[in-house]
Amino acid sequence: MPITDIDRLIQMLAKLPGLGPRSARRAALSLINNPDAVMRPLALALTTAADNVKACSICGNLDTTETCAICTDTRRDGLLICVVEQVGDLWALERSATYSGHYHVLGGVLAPLDGIGPDDLAIDALVARAKNSDVTEIILATSATVDGRTTAHYISERLEGFVAKITVLAHGIPVGGELDYLDDGTLAAALRDRHTV
Amino acid sequence: MPITDIDRLIQMLAKLPGLGPRSARRAALSLINNPDAVMRPLALALTTAADNVKACSICGNLDTTETCAICTDTRRDGLLICVVEQVGDLWALERSATYSGHYHVLGGVLAPLDGIGPDDLAIDALVARAKNSDVTEIILATSATVDGRTTAHYISERLEGFVAKITVLAHGIPVGGELDYLDDGTLAAALRDRHTV
Repeated sequence: MPITDIDRLIQMLAKLPGLGPRSARRAALSLINNPDAVMRPLALALTTAADNVKACSICGNLDTTETCAICTDTRRDGLLICVVEQVGDLWALERSATYSGHYHVLGGVLAPLDGIGPDDLAIDALVARAKNSDVTEIILATSATVDGRTTAHYISERLEGFVAKITVLAHGIPVGGELDYLDDGTLAAALRDRHTV
Repeated sequence: MPITDIDRLIQMLAKLPGLGPRSARRAALSLINNPDAVMRPLALALTTAADNVKACSICGNLDTTETCAICTDTRRDGLLICVVEQVGDLWALERSATYSGHYHVLGGVLAPLDGIGPDDLAIDALVARAKNSDVTEIILATSATVDGRTTAHYISERLEGFVAKITVLAHGIPVGGELDYLDDGTLAAALRDRHTV
């Protein structure tokens, strides 16, 4: 049986993270049932984004302009840089609506076993930003994984002398989290960093 | 903040079944990171499918031709029609590779509370197929839900006199299923329809 347009659509949808073969089929059926309301607009949105979206030349955030909306926003604090692994982490911090400084997207973490070294991440660019500007604090918001911590440690050494203050995110109990379901490491960190009410 | 091309892409992706806002963001990021390998091909697959895919004029299956590949396949048994609710059910039966007859896609089930009556489903077309051909058996493969059973019952009454044999799928323990996790109805049906080994 030859591969039809439907099969090809399912194959392409199955490449999206979060969609397996089964949900790709469901998605394809739902799209075919809504060709004008969903299918063509999605195709257009994909093409437009493929044409226009690029990484910000300063921080690595994704936007449709050469310099992203965050880097050009004068209401944000340019003396504060938050270093994140991926653009998704930047989006998550923006959703929390508690941070108003600038960002720096590394593009991953150091992973020697996978062949990812300092040259594969935007670390030189970060050091250059710290050197050539008046940045007062750099927040290392990498993941609390072994690789994330190693990366933060390496970056903090590289930044030494170029910025007054280097910080990392606090560990503790997630808001809404139940103690019974937390791992020992988180509980220990929460207990260690306890503070008076 | 104005809606960017990225936001629009995420909004469109979030309309797919199985993708919530979070996974739509992940999918959008993965697409933007692979513009030429995944993003543009997906846009092309969507446009091609929107242009070419239509419902088969005989059975309602989706294909790129006026009459679908199953209805035109001479190796399949045209005297046998399997009635399914949706094209997805047809695909599931095809994947099981145990059925070689034709199909009839209803387009849903009778649901008076939602205003879906017999005229909203392809029931007249099914009766016409039974009347005007030599079909020997019609299998009512609707879901084992209340609505599905009601629909099957209604259709069997409508077909009476036009076809020699009307059948429904067997109930029983799913292959690989553990008795402990099965509902009472399934267990009762499996016990009632037991057979000698």
